[in-house]
Amino acid sequence: MDDKQMLMIPGPTPVPEKVLLAMAKHPIGHRSSEFSQIIETVNHHLKWLFQTQHDVLTVAASGTGAVEAGIINFLSPGDKVLVGSNGKFGDRWVQIAKAFGLDVQVIAADWGQPLDTEAFRTALESNPQIKAAIVTHSETSTGVLNDIETINRHVKAHGQALIIVDAVTSLGAYNLPVDELGLDVVATGSQKGFMIPPGLGFIAVSPKAWEAYEQATIPKFYFDLGKYRKTAAKNSTPFTPPVNLYFGLHTALEMMKAEGLEAIFARHERHKQATRAAAKALNLPLFAGDDCASPAVTSILPDGVDAEQIRAVMKKRFDIALAGGQDHLKGKLFRIGHLGFVCDRDILAAVSALEATLQELGYERFSPGSGLAAAHRVLLSR
Amino acid sequence: MDDKQMLMIPGPTPVPEKVLLAMAKHPIGHRSSEFSQIIETVNHHLKWLFQTQHDVLTVAASGTGAVEAGIINFLSPGDKVLVGSNGKFGDRWVQIAKAFGLDVQVIAADWGQPLDTEAFRTALESNPQIKAAIVTHSETSTGVLNDIETINRHVKAHGQALIIVDAVTSLGAYNLPVDELGLDVVATGSQKGFMIPPGLGFIAVSPKAWEAYEQATIPKFYFDLGKYRKTAAKNSTPFTPPVNLYFGLHTALEMMKAEGLEAIFARHERHKQATRAAAKALNLPLFAGDDCASPAVTSILPDGVDAEQIRAVMKKRFDIALAGGQDHLKGKLFRIGHLGFVCDRDILAAVSALEATLQELGYERFSPGSGLAAAHRVLLSR
Repeated sequence: MDDKQMLMIPGPTPVPEKVLLAMAKHPIGHRSSEFSQIIETVNHHLKWLFQTQHDVLTVAASGTGAVEAGIINFLSPGDKVLVGSNGKFGDRWVQIAKAFGLDVQVIAADWGQPLDTEAFRTALESNPQIKAAIVTHSETSTGVLNDIETINRHVKAHGQALIIVDAVTSLGAYNLPVDELGLDVVATGSQKGFMIPPGLGFIAVSPKAWEAYEQATIPKFYFDLGKYRKTAAKNSTPFTPPVNLYFGLHTALEMMKAEGLEAIFARHERHKQATRAAAKALNLPLFAGDDCASPAVTSILPDGVDAEQIRAVMKKRFDIALAGGQDHLKGKLFRIGHLGFVCDRDILAAVSALEATLQELGYERFSPGSGLAAAHRVLLSR
Repeated sequence: MDDKQMLMIPGPTPVPEKVLLAMAKHPIGHRSSEFSQIIETVNHHLKWLFQTQHDVLTVAASGTGAVEAGIINFLSPGDKVLVGSNGKFGDRWVQIAKAFGLDVQVIAADWGQPLDTEAFRTALESNPQIKAAIVTHSETSTGVLNDIETINRHVKAHGQALIIVDAVTSLGAYNLPVDELGLDVVATGSQKGFMIPPGLGFIAVSPKAWEAYEQATIPKFYFDLGKYRKTAAKNSTPFTPPVNLYFGLHTALEMMKAEGLEAIFARHERHKQATRAAAKALNLPLFAGDDCASPAVTSILPDGVDAEQIRAVMKKRFDIALAGGQDHLKGKLFRIGHLGFVCDRDILAAVSALEATLQELGYERFSPGSGLAAAHRVLLSR
């Protein structure tokens, strides 16, 4: 049905009407005092959201640009780095690290499995020269949440290495207290937990990372975070910022503050549990285990029914967009996003439509209503 | 007055209501067939606007990011390049070229003066090793339009060198037929002639530039234009695109097509001439000469009245935002933008308000009404 689509993909995520209308305001001058005030407020709220006292810098770029900035600002060609890879995005950070001449040791795990924290420990213990561990927290392509807390402990034991975190689909969905954990670089994008459309990237930077910045020689200009730090101190930006996306960000952050961090994290946990309970009741195999499931996206590897047919019927009959598999999982996997501006009703609607879709496709390995009942039970209990 | 501001700065420029409302639509999946159709239409229209049959690639970044991509994709560290510099943006491309290890020969001119085309000829003739000439077409900081046609002829006579053009405030305002001139790389940003807010950058790339790309070794990933070319062929993007800015771009390009290139260029020429005629009638010294005046922005270096006071009164009393001077011209210069979605009424309003402002500030070197009459005469005659 025209104009009726519901986004249940892990980005872009649903955007509140208030945010859409804020973005539809006429732009103002980016060097005006009015816009400086917006920058000041936004930067204040971003520190709250990242749970840090230090810099959170905003770049006009997608999440990949933000992660690239998070890598190239703190390292030099030839530096030894560990890169975790258990999905499409881990693979991408390996490619970036190699493109900029870093000496990359990949710590790989199968897609759908979490990264092996012991492998990080061993690698870090055996090489005092390691300059950074680059780790994806929530691997969007598989729905796996990597154990960043444990990997971070091993990095801290190493002493020298920085921990650089891709928090693209975890920040704003899962409790990631940047200062408390002592994370050095945490990068993410706007179309995820932030409830605004794509186009902005955010990078939190620790004092230790700024020390590394002073020595880092990978060439950079647009993504030179030192420039962003310097202008942020004056409530400005080094280059023309996407003014209308800032309007949306400003509104979205006010909404997030009103809801509160604990409530936001609890809501994502509840939706994750409800979606997983439904999948189990429907005998749909979950791709990630219970102990490593992302709060943002649930991946299902259906057996006895075609993933792409499920997505097609969900979209055509029920106007719900689900994500497919990526790379070698294309056509095999489907992913339900429950990230950002998602309420309990959305979960019930998605599960109900999924049940109806399965029936329409002749999949009979569940008793009708069982998925919905399971989801509802979780939503009621939390 | 709240919510009543009129933007007369050279970016962000005014945005049509249709475009604002298009941006306020709920995002859709960036890998959906609906979004592929938008990419296809937008890319088709971009080629029309750039007057090229070749690639015009879109990146999520500000104009500086687009120009950086236009430089780093086609060169290697140590390559000899000429960089024209007669303002803040020329200076910036010098900084970028140096940051990425290029061997930079600066061809400088005083701010307010055009680049010396003969200096380009001499440098190109004396050095067959030059790999590129990097030239700002419309220098936004001063309102000078550099003679890209002549510089380009000298580059063509050289044979090997690429011409890389910063067309940030000229594209969509001035006739720049990319293929007819044989320009290799032409970069610009969305908040200028495109009538949409900042956040997108565009780069046209010639076949000769793609040949240079194959040899270029400056490291890159997010700005690797090869990735954008490959995905553009499939109506996709390598990284999540700013979906809502694309909605706006789609609408704005349809509006530009309806107006037509000739009419758009004539409108900018008319507004430039009207603004300059008014300034002359008001005895306000123009910073750029008649033979090198930008179609996008008119810079005035007032004598006997303070530039910042003019801007303050224009903003406070008449809700018109003008731009100030940059770097060493801060506080001395003011700039009137007439770029993008600007109609004749806007020019009359700005000139009228400027007359009133000058009177309020006790500046008496003009006869009241003379600026408006001069502007009106130009608008009527074209």
